[in-house]
Amino acid sequence: MQRSTLIQQIKEKKSFLCVGLDTDANKIPAHLASQPDGILSFNKAIIDATKYHCVSYKINTAFYEAMGSKGWDIMAETVSYIPASHLKIADAKRADIGNTSSYYAKAFFETIPFDAITVAPYMGEDSIRPFLEYENKWTIVLGLTSNPGAKDFEMLKLQGEKEWHLYEQVLHTVSKWGDLQQLMFVTGATQATALKEIRKIVPDHFLLVPGVGAQGGSLQEVAENGINDEIGLLVNASRAILYAGSDAGFASAAQKVAAAYQIEMSAYL
Amino acid sequence: MQRSTLIQQIKEKKSFLCVGLDTDANKIPAHLASQPDGILSFNKAIIDATKYHCVSYKINTAFYEAMGSKGWDIMAETVSYIPASHLKIADAKRADIGNTSSYYAKAFFETIPFDAITVAPYMGEDSIRPFLEYENKWTIVLGLTSNPGAKDFEMLKLQGEKEWHLYEQVLHTVSKWGDLQQLMFVTGATQATALKEIRKIVPDHFLLVPGVGAQGGSLQEVAENGINDEIGLLVNASRAILYAGSDAGFASAAQKVAAAYQIEMSAYL
Repeated sequence: MQRSTLIQQIKEKKSFLCVGLDTDANKIPAHLASQPDGILSFNKAIIDATKYHCVSYKINTAFYEAMGSKGWDIMAETVSYIPASHLKIADAKRADIGNTSSYYAKAFFETIPFDAITVAPYMGEDSIRPFLEYENKWTIVLGLTSNPGAKDFEMLKLQGEKEWHLYEQVLHTVSKWGDLQQLMFVTGATQATALKEIRKIVPDHFLLVPGVGAQGGSLQEVAENGINDEIGLLVNASRAILYAGSDAGFASAAQKVAAAYQIEMSAYL
Repeated sequence: MQRSTLIQQIKEKKSFLCVGLDTDANKIPAHLASQPDGILSFNKAIIDATKYHCVSYKINTAFYEAMGSKGWDIMAETVSYIPASHLKIADAKRADIGNTSSYYAKAFFETIPFDAITVAPYMGEDSIRPFLEYENKWTIVLGLTSNPGAKDFEMLKLQGEKEWHLYEQVLHTVSKWGDLQQLMFVTGATQATALKEIRKIVPDHFLLVPGVGAQGGSLQEVAENGINDEIGLLVNASRAILYAGSDAGFASAAQKVAAAYQIEMSAYL
């Protein structure tokens, strides 16, 4: 998906919401959990219920891999069900030596036609380069994540004139490896105050912001500190939407939560 | 697999060889590539040919994911074919927020019963903790990798009294999160001289060392700098063994290369 298309979608819908399909067989309503295609049916119902309120879906691969090959089929069928208007993100946190990363790129850009993949920066340029070789595909690199462990390494201070934290160096270095049409960064909503500093390093990039909702991040803080001239934000909510309801009315409950996010977002645009 | 069992296997076989099953549909012999079960047949033949010379197999998940759900079936069938005596490693480079990592742990420790998984340290403790909660399973954390991109972030110097490189801090910090029975580290063979320094930080841990063979690392240097009192090394070779031959004699060619590694290794033990 082109950057201009994504921005247009956001402006038309007045929403920069990404719905995370972290679908857990143990958390979907009982009437679906007992069906062979229960998870796929759940995903389709969530997509139908939320697609007018969001511009993107993010599939967390872990939840599908835990089911083995069947999970990969569900993931592929879910991706094919998402409307072409929506950015389809594989939240996969991959990266390996270059030769191997080219196979991950194939898995998530060709075998299953996602528009974007999240990748981990630890192994450096050649581990990320193969993803950047695809046109109209997005590589979303971990910057500052939303979890407690972010302090262990991402927040370590580096030597050098700027005395950057590791994540700041990652943002700076990786931003030179591609352009605004193909690179985004993950910056967690639980670190919303850091967004102001992050915007000094990557003022123009899109940021994928998880951690709103179940993880406790504030949408208002994210919007105030993160929005740029072309919006430049995708804010993800997963559990807060997926499990808003626990019975036959789950899709309607999810729709209400997604709509509430969209309405709040429209105020920040 | 218990640490004592692994050490016993190494001593009995006089080998610390791990064979990497990075099986590429485009590189296996033509007579197998044309068969529906060609990749699985190839893997089984490689396992049969090399199992007396190695103590471990490492499956690089990228190569299987590129095939979609069929690849996951092949991965599962390959794992079930590997003898119980051999440590089965999922080279998956996973890690995400804690809730998500627990699903990755399920995928690779339960759904497919690997003995070990490689994980990326960037996101910190809660991203690695779920893997450590399994008994008799190994978590192999990236330390210093074998690729050119290792210099981009892993080699950055940190502030602090020790002025460590990032990878040294990773080794030090992560080594406190678990014990010698469950934690290993990836340290690339192309950085063999760094192994001496690495051994000062993690003297007793097993190290998984890729990069011998196609990537140019020296087995002799790795052994000289990396072996400890309980050996503490698994050295991986993938392409050098898998593609030693390109015709019907591929398994025999692979066996010869694996045997040559084992013979060289026996001299270092």
